[in-house]
Amino acid sequence: MKPDVIIVGGGLIGLASAWKSRIKGMAVTVVDPHFGKGTSHVAAGMLAPVTEAHYGEEEVVRINSASAAMYPSFVEELEEASSQQVGYRDTGTLVVAGDPSDRAALTELVEFHQSLGLDSEWIAPTEARRLEPSLAPSIAGAILAQGDHQVDNRRLISALIEANRRAGTELITGSVKEFEVSKDKLKGVLLDNGARLESDNFLLAAGVWSNTIPGIPEPVQPTVRPVKGQSARLHFTSASHSQGAIFPRYTLRALVKGVHVYMVPRESGEMVLGATMEERGFDTSVTAGGLYELLRNARQIFPGITELELSETIAGLRPATPGNLPLLGASGIPGLTIATGHGRNGVLLTPLTAEVISDYLTKGELSWVLEVCSTDRYKQDAQSG
Amino acid sequence: MKPDVIIVGGGLIGLASAWKSRIKGMAVTVVDPHFGKGTSHVAAGMLAPVTEAHYGEEEVVRINSASAAMYPSFVEELEEASSQQVGYRDTGTLVVAGDPSDRAALTELVEFHQSLGLDSEWIAPTEARRLEPSLAPSIAGAILAQGDHQVDNRRLISALIEANRRAGTELITGSVKEFEVSKDKLKGVLLDNGARLESDNFLLAAGVWSNTIPGIPEPVQPTVRPVKGQSARLHFTSASHSQGAIFPRYTLRALVKGVHVYMVPRESGEMVLGATMEERGFDTSVTAGGLYELLRNARQIFPGITELELSETIAGLRPATPGNLPLLGASGIPGLTIATGHGRNGVLLTPLTAEVISDYLTKGELSWVLEVCSTDRYKQDAQSG
Repeated sequence: MKPDVIIVGGGLIGLASAWKSRIKGMAVTVVDPHFGKGTSHVAAGMLAPVTEAHYGEEEVVRINSASAAMYPSFVEELEEASSQQVGYRDTGTLVVAGDPSDRAALTELVEFHQSLGLDSEWIAPTEARRLEPSLAPSIAGAILAQGDHQVDNRRLISALIEANRRAGTELITGSVKEFEVSKDKLKGVLLDNGARLESDNFLLAAGVWSNTIPGIPEPVQPTVRPVKGQSARLHFTSASHSQGAIFPRYTLRALVKGVHVYMVPRESGEMVLGATMEERGFDTSVTAGGLYELLRNARQIFPGITELELSETIAGLRPATPGNLPLLGASGIPGLTIATGHGRNGVLLTPLTAEVISDYLTKGELSWVLEVCSTDRYKQDAQSG
Repeated sequence: MKPDVIIVGGGLIGLASAWKSRIKGMAVTVVDPHFGKGTSHVAAGMLAPVTEAHYGEEEVVRINSASAAMYPSFVEELEEASSQQVGYRDTGTLVVAGDPSDRAALTELVEFHQSLGLDSEWIAPTEARRLEPSLAPSIAGAILAQGDHQVDNRRLISALIEANRRAGTELITGSVKEFEVSKDKLKGVLLDNGARLESDNFLLAAGVWSNTIPGIPEPVQPTVRPVKGQSARLHFTSASHSQGAIFPRYTLRALVKGVHVYMVPRESGEMVLGATMEERGFDTSVTAGGLYELLRNARQIFPGITELELSETIAGLRPATPGNLPLLGASGIPGLTIATGHGRNGVLLTPLTAEVISDYLTKGELSWVLEVCSTDRYKQDAQSG
């Protein structure tokens, strides 16, 4: 029997959309060569509608804020459905200025945040160190964003896989080799093991690989490109403690001589350190220089990082789009819906994406989100320009 | 049937001593929980009688030089016996001064080298960069030590295992839980799987773990302590090349604001970056601070390192002794010979150790090396003091 929808891509976006669509009554199949081992695995799990708010990206802020508001109930429902904890933590985020020139940039940013009505305030170095004693004495102040939280992205993947299993979603481990389009309609997908899967509905949620699978006409292919991010995972151990290191409570972001760095501390003692932004195609190598820069900038802000154990170095590929909004909704080919291009905000946008995509798949329901994130917005721009 | 000798420890020292003893006619058994995966695996493979020559350690220089002289024929014999290549490379070593204060320390060191008759000369920055164009323009000169070579320590282990197999050495994978000493003679060893092995001769070559196995009376236990070294393995890739990096030909050592760092480039494009010196017991964690310091100092000398892929981070434990000479020969308990405590020079001292230990085991032959490295030299010091 044909499933109601076949989802190509088992990262956070594909898995959450599958789970929500299944709950809403569809028979769902998800195909992925390595479930949850792509960009979702490399991510840090910051939920940062405020500290990811950039000039000229008011629409991004709007959808980010909408998804952030959904997070607590999404997590509650998912933890219940999966019997797993996903490490949601609402401690807040500090964006630390490394020196006076970084302070100038960040105080301007606070004004922009406040002009959008976001919860963002500038705090002096002493106040920042009172809140977060792990910070270096040399910092030049910080933005406090109480509403920017975090989730453990790897536990989120695990919980979504389990919730899908329990709900009866079919998870097929395999690579889609080709989309079969006939008479301008998507009819099926061919897998690398020779199997052919048919459905009336497909969701393309393959992140940065969404436009690398043959078969979809070029004008319809989503406009995503990989932006490489190198990162590391560290651990606060008993040795770290005995060397006098304090483990941060807040998520720490920083601007250090104009370069961004972040450190996301988990309850478990894990810390995610990230991330470079590099245009290098599909290269996922970790370089000496990438890691060096992260460590150098991080220790300016949190000197105790030197005493943490380095347990993993990894690089991932963010599915970026021009304008930094995701691509959500109808593709232009009957039977093919798209959910990709989440860039730096994929973990944050998971609940909102799953909700609007599952509403669209199950009920054909359109929302303001699909309008803002329409896949043909570039064509509209081109026509109007 | 009892073997003629049971060797406890299957690192470079144990395996090479086994191979040489087997060739000289003994029936040999080696026991190790993970053959070649201890300190020998983490090492960099520098063969550095000159650039490891330190003030007041003339005896260390003497044995290091003797072993370095044996390396070419040792490698030839081993490659023949194993049908494997071990990556011996006689390109030479540069010890680079990071700044003028490092230059002052290194020019003094050259004088010391020359006073010992070692092949060591001071070269100006331009000459150093002519020899090795990968060096930074900012360097303050270098020592050129043409006689300091390198070998791929991991391939050396592999070849020694194969040579032992072909020669008929028995390699038993297991942990020695206890030495059985009765009437002041070592009778056997108990393994963690319950097996008991007997012989009239035992060689204790367990490196930094040599005094952690119960059963040997404390006064007889070798005086070794672990000195932790953090290191990394990098690779020169096509991406490194396209980013304009040049791969070094010489082994690069450096003094950067008084701190030592080394980079050992292999023909394969691998580079070993090392190493911290830390007194931390048996801790083998890699820390953010350890790796950061290595990278920071290395890039002062070889800026192109930032474009290399980081493929491995690892920490190992050097078996250090007071005075930095190994402990070789009779232990004070009949039936127990010792070969441990090689500190920073284990790879270099492998041929010499294997030769003198196998001569001692097979023929009871004493040599100047066993005299210099006698296990009771501390007691003699104490008596004379």
